[in-house]
Amino acid sequence: MEVRAAVAVGAGKPLEVTTVNLEGPRAFEVLVEIKATGICHTDEFTLSGADPEGLFPAILGHEGAGVVVEVGKGVTTLKPGDHVIPLYTPECRSCEYCLNPKTNLCQAIRSTQGQGLMPDGSSRFTTLDGDPILHYMGTSTFANYTVVPEIALAKINPDAPFDKVCYIGCGVTTGIGAVINTAKVEIGSKAIVFGLGGIGLNVIQGLRLAGADQIVGVDLNPAKKEMAERFGMTDFVNPSEVEGDLVPYLVNLTGGGGDYTFDATGNVGVMRTALECAHKGWGESIIIGVAPAGAEIATRPFQLVTGRVWKGTAFGGARGRTDVPKIVDWYMDGKIEIDPMITHTMPLEDINKGFDLMHAGESIRSVVLY
Amino acid sequence: MEVRAAVAVGAGKPLEVTTVNLEGPRAFEVLVEIKATGICHTDEFTLSGADPEGLFPAILGHEGAGVVVEVGKGVTTLKPGDHVIPLYTPECRSCEYCLNPKTNLCQAIRSTQGQGLMPDGSSRFTTLDGDPILHYMGTSTFANYTVVPEIALAKINPDAPFDKVCYIGCGVTTGIGAVINTAKVEIGSKAIVFGLGGIGLNVIQGLRLAGADQIVGVDLNPAKKEMAERFGMTDFVNPSEVEGDLVPYLVNLTGGGGDYTFDATGNVGVMRTALECAHKGWGESIIIGVAPAGAEIATRPFQLVTGRVWKGTAFGGARGRTDVPKIVDWYMDGKIEIDPMITHTMPLEDINKGFDLMHAGESIRSVVLY
Ligand SMILES: NC(=O)c1ccc[n+]([C@@H]2O[C@H](COP(=O)([O-])OP(=O)(O)OC[C@H]3O[C@@H](n4cnc5c(N)ncnc54)[C@H](O)[C@@H]3O)[C@@H](O)[C@H]2O)c1
Ligand SMILES: NC(=O)c1ccc[n+]([C@@H]2O[C@H](COP(=O)([O-])OP(=O)(O)OC[C@H]3O[C@@H](n4cnc5c(N)ncnc54)[C@H](O)[C@@H]3O)[C@@H](O)[C@H]2O)c1
Repeated sequence: MEVRAAVAVGAGKPLEVTTVNLEGPRAFEVLVEIKATGICHTDEFTLSGADPEGLFPAILGHEGAGVVVEVGKGVTTLKPGDHVIPLYTPECRSCEYCLNPKTNLCQAIRSTQGQGLMPDGSSRFTTLDGDPILHYMGTSTFANYTVVPEIALAKINPDAPFDKVCYIGCGVTTGIGAVINTAKVEIGSKAIVFGLGGIGLNVIQGLRLAGADQIVGVDLNPAKKEMAERFGMTDFVNPSEVEGDLVPYLVNLTGGGGDYTFDATGNVGVMRTALECAHKGWGESIIIGVAPAGAEIATRPFQLVTGRVWKGTAFGGARGRTDVPKIVDWYMDGKIEIDPMITHTMPLEDINKGFDLMHAGESIRSVVLY
Repeated sequence: MEVRAAVAVGAGKPLEVTTVNLEGPRAFEVLVEIKATGICHTDEFTLSGADPEGLFPAILGHEGAGVVVEVGKGVTTLKPGDHVIPLYTPECRSCEYCLNPKTNLCQAIRSTQGQGLMPDGSSRFTTLDGDPILHYMGTSTFANYTVVPEIALAKINPDAPFDKVCYIGCGVTTGIGAVINTAKVEIGSKAIVFGLGGIGLNVIQGLRLAGADQIVGVDLNPAKKEMAERFGMTDFVNPSEVEGDLVPYLVNLTGGGGDYTFDATGNVGVMRTALECAHKGWGESIIIGVAPAGAEIATRPFQLVTGRVWKGTAFGGARGRTDVPKIVDWYMDGKIEIDPMITHTMPLEDINKGFDLMHAGESIRSVVLY
């Protein structure tokens, strides 16, 4: 079938919105009509060429929501009409990783996914001339129809609005999951969040949901303060307004350091600060941000010997088929908010404007509506 | 009273074995006759001048065992005749740290202890001329009598031999505790231990006690192999015999990486290797070694984002008054071994020979018998 897609033709080039061919689902695959998709930093990271593993031409996009149109042979858990969110971290429920309760990093289809291919090693997308186009993160939501493995689809509440819950496909789950699954924050905790963008705001609402007492937000951009307060931030710190070293300032502000600290900037210097302002004896620092290729984090080992813990999180430690439907329900029940974070919407034709808004720091989330 | 002590008179100088004055215990203090003391790397670190916080003149030693001789006013938990192990990490059971189950770093007397003083801000040791001599780590076990705060003494089984259980005052507890308290290793785990010295061997027997399935030991010195096997090591790796990078070699040997890895070398390069050969998704790496002043650890944040956890441990995460008596009982019950690790004993007069043996890598533990 012919579908409309934004194709990443090469590093640093704008996406080309065009018509491409999509083959139907093979065994254990599902054809999904994408209704909405967010534009995330990871798409930008790949499109810019900064990701050394980025491949072209490809159809990017990994934060979508849509409806099942057709299922391939052997698919048992989904049927046409089901509402779904594609998962860039699948959940096969039978690999060594899925069977280990300490991780969410299902490895069932990792190597083909990393090569931009479906699990059988081929692509479903081609140009109208028949040249192959690669998938991306197993999801390729920058197309109005896409083919996704069954194990990479979460079935969600059919009443949930696509234009909001698509954001649960990455940003919301990453931020809230970092708090709930990775840090396992307890009621009454003190926390420090670095970076109040699309991820950091969700960390903040995750902390509110988990019952944190103090939620310090740190951002160089003072315009981020108001929105962060709306999501539960109790104290705002602009590092450029702090005299002297930021670590003792934050340790003092929290009466000893954060029980939990989070990096949502991707800056390795910030990651170090986040670790070092975690509380001696028990503070845990969670890295969410994705650093530039080759960048390294560093600290003195004494920071760890005196009880701080350094962790990271991918997709918020969430097992997508199990956890994503729950987060959709939390949204429907009013336990979490999404609407104010969707600052811009646009048709697929204008998708490059979404990237421009991200570069300018003007959007929290831009969503493409098909 | 006059006591015999080995005095550290200055950085890099040998200890001077001499007679010094010891004042009796003040309120909440206890006079202990030390019967035996181990010589640990931390004493050497301070004596060498490498520790920027080292102070002189001082009476070093923090791995002792002895008998209570006299108790000061207000002491309620100990009486003359009790057998005790002095604790460089005290356990007051009422500070913010003691009341937080996540840490063992009691802060009750930290600042005075760091200055080489008793909790009231004074020293009990003086030269025969009346010049003050500092305490060290709150224990000063390189003297046949010493004064220690009540909260820094663990009361132990009176049948336990001093010349063996003194080692529980640091090395044994640090190694076994890193496994049991900090890593909380589960039955069936795979582990990798870097450095098979006095600490590493205790990590290995802690792993055996915890039911680990595979216990890989890594040391540049092949002479360490035999003893480590005796304590439970299942595989030995000499990095100088591995062609190519050590990380993939160890990941392969353990079928994916260690569920738990431990640095017991103090080398920051080894700490990085230990983190990176921890299993993707869930591997935890625990830093035990103390690095040279100013040295830093580094890695790519991706290592953490893909699920590895970086931790450290001090005194094996043990709460001394609670945990040290239990470890003494484990020794008495034959659950753990200590005897083969005490490779040398000597009178106080020969204590500098113990440091020479350590430098030469010939001893696991030298113990001074009073
Ligand atoms: N681990 C995961 O699974 C995962 C998933 C999605 C995104 N991410 C990563 O999370 C990070 C944040 O994404 P986002 O969408 O929120 O980005 P964003 O650009 O919307 O927000 C980043 C915020 O950090 C602030 N900032 C930048 N440098 C700072 C500094 N030195 N000190 C304080 N604040 C600073 C910016 O002002 C901005 O508000 C990115 O690195 C992204 O790649 C990770
Ligand atoms: N965290 C704590 O509470 C605590 C307590 C006591 C000791 N320590 C520290 O633990 C560390 C180990 O102490 P120890 O008494 O066992 O020392 P040790 O000298 O007896 O043992 C160190 C071992 O590491 C090996 N080694 C050195 N470099 C190596 C390398 N690059 N690769 C592989 N092996 C290497 C040596 O051959 C030796 O066998 C020291 O740094 C000490 O200061 C920490």
